[in-house]
Amino acid sequence: MSTCSSTEGQVIRCKAAVAWGPGKPLVIEEVEVAPPQAMEVRLKILFTSLCHTDVYFWEAKGQTPVFPRIFGHEAAGIVESVGEGVTELKPGDHVLPVFTGECKECRHCKSEESNMCDLLRINTDRGVMLNDGKSRFSINGKPIYHFVGTSTFSEYTVVHVGCVAKINPEAPLDKVCVLSCGISTGLGATLNVAKPPKGSTVAIFGLGAVGLAAAEGARIAGASRIIGVDLNSNRFEEAKKFGVTEFVNPKDYNKPVQEVLAEITDGGVDRSIECTGSINAMISAFECVHDGWGVAVLVGVPNKDDAFRTHPINVLNEKTLKGTFFGNYKPRTDLPSVVEKYMNKELELEKFITHEVPFSEINKAFEYMLKGAGLRCIIHMGA
Amino acid sequence: MSTCSSTEGQVIRCKAAVAWGPGKPLVIEEVEVAPPQAMEVRLKILFTSLCHTDVYFWEAKGQTPVFPRIFGHEAAGIVESVGEGVTELKPGDHVLPVFTGECKECRHCKSEESNMCDLLRINTDRGVMLNDGKSRFSINGKPIYHFVGTSTFSEYTVVHVGCVAKINPEAPLDKVCVLSCGISTGLGATLNVAKPPKGSTVAIFGLGAVGLAAAEGARIAGASRIIGVDLNSNRFEEAKKFGVTEFVNPKDYNKPVQEVLAEITDGGVDRSIECTGSINAMISAFECVHDGWGVAVLVGVPNKDDAFRTHPINVLNEKTLKGTFFGNYKPRTDLPSVVEKYMNKELELEKFITHEVPFSEINKAFEYMLKGAGLRCIIHMGA
Ligand SMILES: NC(=O)c1ccc[n+]([C@@H]2O[C@H](COP(=O)([O-])OP(=O)(O)OC[C@H]3O[C@@H](n4cnc5c(N)ncnc54)[C@H](O)[C@@H]3O)[C@@H](O)[C@H]2O)c1
Ligand SMILES: NC(=O)c1ccc[n+]([C@@H]2O[C@H](COP(=O)([O-])OP(=O)(O)OC[C@H]3O[C@@H](n4cnc5c(N)ncnc54)[C@H](O)[C@@H]3O)[C@@H](O)[C@H]2O)c1
Ligand SMILES: [Zn+2]
Ligand SMILES: [Zn+2]
Ligand SMILES: [Zn+2]
Ligand SMILES: [Zn+2]
Repeated sequence: MSTCSSTEGQVIRCKAAVAWGPGKPLVIEEVEVAPPQAMEVRLKILFTSLCHTDVYFWEAKGQTPVFPRIFGHEAAGIVESVGEGVTELKPGDHVLPVFTGECKECRHCKSEESNMCDLLRINTDRGVMLNDGKSRFSINGKPIYHFVGTSTFSEYTVVHVGCVAKINPEAPLDKVCVLSCGISTGLGATLNVAKPPKGSTVAIFGLGAVGLAAAEGARIAGASRIIGVDLNSNRFEEAKKFGVTEFVNPKDYNKPVQEVLAEITDGGVDRSIECTGSINAMISAFECVHDGWGVAVLVGVPNKDDAFRTHPINVLNEKTLKGTFFGNYKPRTDLPSVVEKYMNKELELEKFITHEVPFSEINKAFEYMLKGAGLRCIIHMGA
Repeated sequence: MSTCSSTEGQVIRCKAAVAWGPGKPLVIEEVEVAPPQAMEVRLKILFTSLCHTDVYFWEAKGQTPVFPRIFGHEAAGIVESVGEGVTELKPGDHVLPVFTGECKECRHCKSEESNMCDLLRINTDRGVMLNDGKSRFSINGKPIYHFVGTSTFSEYTVVHVGCVAKINPEAPLDKVCVLSCGISTGLGATLNVAKPPKGSTVAIFGLGAVGLAAAEGARIAGASRIIGVDLNSNRFEEAKKFGVTEFVNPKDYNKPVQEVLAEITDGGVDRSIECTGSINAMISAFECVHDGWGVAVLVGVPNKDDAFRTHPINVLNEKTLKGTFFGNYKPRTDLPSVVEKYMNKELELEKFITHEVPFSEINKAFEYMLKGAGLRCIIHMGA
């Protein structure tokens, strides 16, 4: 493989894990990666991990499939070269690519409250770059499509500069790569949106990686009770490492879980964070917060036909319902400080990393996730 | 009528407007008002106004009727005497009685976020005082019931000290009496809960007294566009006085009003405040706010069987749904400062007062409201 300086402006030939069709095991292929165009950067990916969203669009059930495609959106790497107009990044910078971006110019980017950039907001249908509507990946001249603007299951990838967070070069990339998506989502849902006061009681619905990151946020915020709610009691043992102090499995009761929570908390929790994608959990998460001050935050991605339904008196009783996308973090502005939280040992990432595989065995990461084994599998690109 | 000093500790005989049955015109009767018991105060009411809630419980449709009853909950008066344990108030203090209270000791009162006092939260079914479960009003020894702890359609009334706000004695009671309920509710919904940033766009659903007070709040907060939404276009002319700059009648369009609002505001309003009680308006008010930063606040009291229903993606897109009770004001702690807003001319109250009648003509106030004429009718107790 070529070094940074010699490859600038040239097509790079490197290995990528290509998904040729829905649900088909990825195949490591030699691909050509075109140089970055205006406002793009080409990254050398060192570590990537697998998230449910990759699996969901790889399975492509009920979707318009976009194949062949290179998946991957949780990763860490180093800038190889930059396109025209890129001034914030230079070759050698350590970075996290992100599935959503920050153009710094739209109303969302200028708003203190929003991170839903008009230009670079996640788009799961698009398989091409914004600049010219084309792919930067090809095999024998035939395009291989991008995924959410990141496509990190490749030794090199091209990403819009607005989707790249420059981070502390001391940060270990094999750890902080998980901050590109799920972990930051859960953490930010708690720290940026739910904002539990010190000593408060927090319910976390769903104890997957996102929910456990939300629990980690509650621990950091100083919550005194962190109640984990999951339909799968197997999740409870692992969750203890994340500061979860109590567990409720809705299946163990013959009344709605919001009533169970109200009973054990003298009227309701102070904050709840839903990390399941289940509409029932979303409704329970809202209804279980205390009237007067309770705040519920929805994180899980719902189904197309779901309807959130509650009696409006729950709203009138001063319960707040919020939702968040990527934990309300603006990728370029905010992710560097999340990396710092890890560097100064406020945030623990090691416990999220339950598996590691070399790039050549990337399909094993899919198997672990499909089996529900562990939380995050780190894929070592260099190995 | 007796003076303050001579009546302390004694039963006062005075005039009150008694509702003898559902929907029956009130009758001015001579009633006996017992002295205040522990933690109670007896007030001389000088001015009261009529609110929809009085009419609603007077009509008593589909409710367990509590009659004979003395209605009235928007009022201003002067403390005549205080019961045992009352230290914060003394005879002669100028006050506003309030339908909801502040005990200063429960979790809600101690929370900065809530005003839903556990002890003194509104209770529309109770017709008696908390201390002994009895009424302080009687005619020939037979009890006449209280309404929401205030019963201000009487020259004298007994109220729990936690439901009494002591205000600036310079404030004209014939104006600030309207701050006891609807006006503070709408004003606080905007100023305390929606908190529109300066220059923002605010939609107000429902242009009754509460909605116009919410508009007044938006004007005070410096909103640059205030869009009034009402099914009744007759409301639009009057609303101009309250800073409403644009009007939308949902009936004029054959698409949902949230879509109309999104079109005229480039994606949605920054804040919306629902003051109708209609579930459709509640849903529209939520869905019409901009993703990323929009906040919707529900104020209207819904029907028992209503269901708030929306696609959860609206929540995920970082729209916030909140509700408020009495504009999140804590009656004793916060109302004095709302009176000050009027005193220093930040808040205009005169424009809410569209009618005035002497106590003897109190039934006219009911007629105005039932016809939908005007906003507030001040009833002069002394006249
Ligand atoms: N908003 C974002 O930016 C963002 C980013 C990443 C993930 N997500 C979403 O967050 C959610 C969680 O992701 P994850 O990777 O942790 O998923 P996961 O599948 O690993 O974990 C979900 C957990 O929820 C539990 N669960 C399901 N239904 C439940 C119910 N009704 N009550 C209680 N528990 C229930 C499951 O048993 C499981 O343990 C997903 O919906 C995912 O799409 C959102
Ligand atoms: N939370 C509280 O503390 C509190 C206090 C007072 C009043 N309220 C509630 O606030 C609401 C408003 O009170 P008000 O006195 O101003 O009432 P009002 O009847 O004077 O005004 C309501 C307005 O809403 C309009 N409206 C009804 N349905 C609508 C719809 N679908 N879309 C748009 N406009 C619609 C009506 O035409 C009317 O002009 C009521 O529900 C009342 O019970 C709440
Ligand atoms: Zn942007
Ligand atoms: Zn992800
Ligand atoms: Zn209280
Ligand atoms: Zn009222």
